[in-house]
Amino acid sequence: MESIGSTRWVVAEGYIPSPGIKEDRALESHETFCILNTGPDDAQISITLFFADRAPVGPCGVVVPAERTMHLRAYDLDDPEPVPRDTDYATVIEPNVPVVVQHSPLDSRPEAFALLSTVAFPAL
Amino acid sequence: MESIGSTRWVVAEGYIPSPGIKEDRALESHETFCILNTGPDDAQISITLFFADRAPVGPCGVVVPAERTMHLRAYDLDDPEPVPRDTDYATVIEPNVPVVVQHSPLDSRPEAFALLSTVAFPAL
Amino acid sequence: MESIGSTRWVVAEGYIPSPGIKEDRALESHETFCILNTGPDDAQISITLFFADRAPVGPCGVVVPAERTMHLRAYDLDDPEPVPRDTDYATVIEPNVPVVVQHSPLDSRPEAFALLSTVAFPAL
Amino acid sequence: MESIGSTRWVVAEGYIPSPGIKEDRALESHETFCILNTGPDDAQISITLFFADRAPVGPCGVVVPAERTMHLRAYDLDDPEPVPRDTDYATVIEPNVPVVVQHSPLDSRPEAFALLSTVAFPAL
Repeated sequence: MESIGSTRWVVAEGYIPSPGIKEDRALESHETFCILNTGPDDAQISITLFFADRAPVGPCGVVVPAERTMHLRAYDLDDPEPVPRDTDYATVIEPNVPVVVQHSPLDSRPEAFALLSTVAFPAL
Repeated sequence: MESIGSTRWVVAEGYIPSPGIKEDRALESHETFCILNTGPDDAQISITLFFADRAPVGPCGVVVPAERTMHLRAYDLDDPEPVPRDTDYATVIEPNVPVVVQHSPLDSRPEAFALLSTVAFPAL
Repeated sequence: MESIGSTRWVVAEGYIPSPGIKEDRALESHETFCILNTGPDDAQISITLFFADRAPVGPCGVVVPAERTMHLRAYDLDDPEPVPRDTDYATVIEPNVPVVVQHSPLDSRPEAFALLSTVAFPAL
Repeated sequence: MESIGSTRWVVAEGYIPSPGIKEDRALESHETFCILNTGPDDAQISITLFFADRAPVGPCGVVVPAERTMHLRAYDLDDPEPVPRDTDYATVIEPNVPVVVQHSPLDSRPEAFALLSTVAFPAL
């Protein structure tokens, strides 16, 4: 299949809450960037994080292989530094080939369980 | 009414959790693709699934009649093979006439009840 | 302010569940179409409903005054007939001047509490 | 990084419920506008509120510094007047340089806990 999507995506909402349910990776609080690369070439992706009160961090690089999807958890990003918990942030995702990005946080603090999802904003 | 929408839609987020509430189809964990065909012709729709670690599967074919909506559950897709549970995936939906697609998962695992919805990404 | 938005919006996902919490209008199960008319003229709006297994119903007409928002509950639509509960449907909203539409269902069945929201698909 | 986004965003859905959980700012009922300014210049932002039954209010001004994100709570807007609770409203956000806006309400009334998020509608 040909490449589908955009080469720049923005997620203005970002917040990794405290872990909540800790024994089960599927139910632990997390933020997932669901990335789909439908095309014939691997996607080299640069991720930049923005904060409220300090300079942007990044870019961090990840690769989504050709014809594959990656459900990337924000707390697995640790280069050049981990994404802090309990901190407002925003994300710009820039692949070298078109991909589609959806953002799906899960909050499993006992008093606040929620699962949500939204297509990121395609800027290019 | 004339045809409305796009002939290619992408849902990068996909994950069918364990069944959760099992006695009631309305409350069982599921992922629904809500498809609306406003036009005068039946829509022949090809659905392709992408995974993290293996080749894409499909296309699977469904028909949404003229001037009708179909709320298609992912776990009802079983040609050429069922959508696996507890597995990350992504979906490309390609009708031969314009339709509109919205994606609405419901997670009814007792510790994780959630209902969400997002318009799919229109790529054409 | 000038008119903002589109003159055709589509919501492919529609489902009014059983009432759930019944004593409080704010918490009763409902589907809301949030419509904003920023412009200087009243918006005459035609709403058409589509179903899985019968012909479309409508149009039903509503008016959103100039420079006002209306949070319209689907179950308040009763011309030419009420929106049925526990039934899949989809909606096309066509104003005569540009407006913005967001769709916000609330499900207050005790075993399924959920509140969600998505911008409708702007088709024109 | 260059400026990304739009200079006019619309959120048709707005409703600040009663406070719910009151002891913890992270869990108190609120509506957040997540604004990202990726560009080299501070963003001067005008916010106008629309209601069901009275004239629009505003504009209220906020500044999002260059290369920063602001997660702005609606109830912190108090110029020229606070956003009322338990009232339907809608919002138009107009920066002087492109930004990206996402809308994330949290409802922590005990009978109605919900967390949701959607990208605002980019009108320009």
